[in-house]
Amino acid sequence: MTNNPGAACPIPLSRYSSVVMAHGGGGRLMRDLIEGVFISAFAPGQTAHLHDAAVLQGPGTRIAMTTDGFVVRPLFFPGSDIGELAVYGTVNDLAMGGARPMYLSASFILEEGLPIETLQRVVTSMGRAAECAGVSIVTGDTKVVEKGRCEGMYIATTGVGAVENGVAVGPDRVCKGDAVIVSGDLGRHGIAVMSVREGFVFEAEISSDCAPLWSPVCALLEAGITVHCLRDLTRGGLASALVEIAESADVTITLDEAAIPVTEPVRAACEILGYDALHVANEGRFVAFVPASEAARAAAVLRDVPVSSGACVVGSVAENGGGQVLIETVGGMRPVDMLSGEQLPRIC
Amino acid sequence: MTNNPGAACPIPLSRYSSVVMAHGGGGRLMRDLIEGVFISAFAPGQTAHLHDAAVLQGPGTRIAMTTDGFVVRPLFFPGSDIGELAVYGTVNDLAMGGARPMYLSASFILEEGLPIETLQRVVTSMGRAAECAGVSIVTGDTKVVEKGRCEGMYIATTGVGAVENGVAVGPDRVCKGDAVIVSGDLGRHGIAVMSVREGFVFEAEISSDCAPLWSPVCALLEAGITVHCLRDLTRGGLASALVEIAESADVTITLDEAAIPVTEPVRAACEILGYDALHVANEGRFVAFVPASEAARAAAVLRDVPVSSGACVVGSVAENGGGQVLIETVGGMRPVDMLSGEQLPRIC
Repeated sequence: MTNNPGAACPIPLSRYSSVVMAHGGGGRLMRDLIEGVFISAFAPGQTAHLHDAAVLQGPGTRIAMTTDGFVVRPLFFPGSDIGELAVYGTVNDLAMGGARPMYLSASFILEEGLPIETLQRVVTSMGRAAECAGVSIVTGDTKVVEKGRCEGMYIATTGVGAVENGVAVGPDRVCKGDAVIVSGDLGRHGIAVMSVREGFVFEAEISSDCAPLWSPVCALLEAGITVHCLRDLTRGGLASALVEIAESADVTITLDEAAIPVTEPVRAACEILGYDALHVANEGRFVAFVPASEAARAAAVLRDVPVSSGACVVGSVAENGGGQVLIETVGGMRPVDMLSGEQLPRIC
Repeated sequence: MTNNPGAACPIPLSRYSSVVMAHGGGGRLMRDLIEGVFISAFAPGQTAHLHDAAVLQGPGTRIAMTTDGFVVRPLFFPGSDIGELAVYGTVNDLAMGGARPMYLSASFILEEGLPIETLQRVVTSMGRAAECAGVSIVTGDTKVVEKGRCEGMYIATTGVGAVENGVAVGPDRVCKGDAVIVSGDLGRHGIAVMSVREGFVFEAEISSDCAPLWSPVCALLEAGITVHCLRDLTRGGLASALVEIAESADVTITLDEAAIPVTEPVRAACEILGYDALHVANEGRFVAFVPASEAARAAAVLRDVPVSSGACVVGSVAENGGGQVLIETVGGMRPVDMLSGEQLPRIC
């Protein structure tokens, strides 16, 4: 028995090849799992304190806080996995509040029988993603439920970030004349997950767009762009995000269908599957509302950042009032609604 | 359709009596659920912004952050429920770091088919618990999984608190001469959950001890007690908490079995079930390490706070080194170990 909880402990990986109920029991096995799997991925080389709460340098006078649960099925899919998703999804919600992501917590619900090797892969992916996104995973928790009571694992992450001085973004600032910019092509995440889940084979493999979005947001702020509102395009896609903003800000948003970037493979997959790309989930895309006079410069700033190199203006706020989204298509103007059914369950 | 997302929306409760997959789909039904169920319980009367991240007043130069998942089975048990547990469990982890609890996030994983009425009960209980504990639930997330892929609901909460100036508690401060104080009688939470789960009927109903613990910690700090370490006694009970501290601080802790407070009904239940009360979970009890010279005063301060009115000294740090816990029983000294099996799964 070691008295240094920071020493990586290889015991559980040789003694257990899969998760057992006692890994969640609060006793020695759970500590083995924490030391052998989580700490080595999230805080390698660090003497862990294994204390109930992490004590952190406060991020300033205004903090942002957000949480997200991840139940994506399957755990691994083209271009990403549940671990990366759990980091980037939460980091991106902070970025959309104009906040620099700093700290993450991770709560795991594990299914009895989950191979430890699978957990290792996910946790390693989370550690790598956290490094890419510039955040620290500072605290965590693990529970184990009986076989069949969850599907491999569910993860909930919570993020805390620092709201940059003077930044105030939100739907209440959206107004007539704003341009609507999307940060890149739409729909890859949703199609990537559905393709592996349903066993579809498309001509070109479609990879998830899963990516951290603070760097393009930071670029906009540092360039002095007047950012009115930011929203990442996750469940429900561009359509749901815009309808929510239009209703909340009570404005009418018009979109130009021809300007909305969708790659040919995604377009083809949507046609086969009967999906509308506007409703398909993304995990590395966002929409920005900026005054029309700054739209071209904002799009140029975004295109200089790799993750948003495909940014373009797709519409505008046509008038105050109305609380709706309209799209101009070859067949004329039609209203856009939120996704209301269960088209793409467990996509994140 | 309303443009004010803060207006309570009774639609989902009349149209749906149970959770459907689309309640987690990111579209209109999910918004109905958020507005109709969550906001009215967590932020009644408040115009919700429904934004990705909550922006909050920063809690000062040092913050504490902690997270916990809750998978307790059943959802309701004598004296408490999963909602109250999810609030107090996380609030207590902050308190154990010497931090005043301020903000909570809540991530829900719901099983398709869960009665909305059940969700309402849990969420109402969370709102009440948050008020009791003096915290705000500021952000949340909901996912829905297929029937059978979770058991009613799982909840992960994350807390952020302000570390009081000058406070530094942790196992590294524990040293020879410290007194070990427990804040009240042990084992009620674990027995309460097991009794309803297994259908045991005891002569006297045993209620969970689930309670928020910041007020007794705050009382200790305000009384100027030199608090070396605090730990709440959840999964794994007093035994696991003390073994973890003894190993981490590399000290030998001795306990006096006769001094450890266990009520007669819990003692009888443990005997019938073959449990050791030292391993049984609590949700409103903690252990404090203070210098022996301050022990009597610390216990008196705790006994003045209702939730810790049963506080008493149960042992001491006998020597530096050793990394173990010993208990003095009528049969002599014996070592105490962490819970290593799955004696009480899904107790929180």
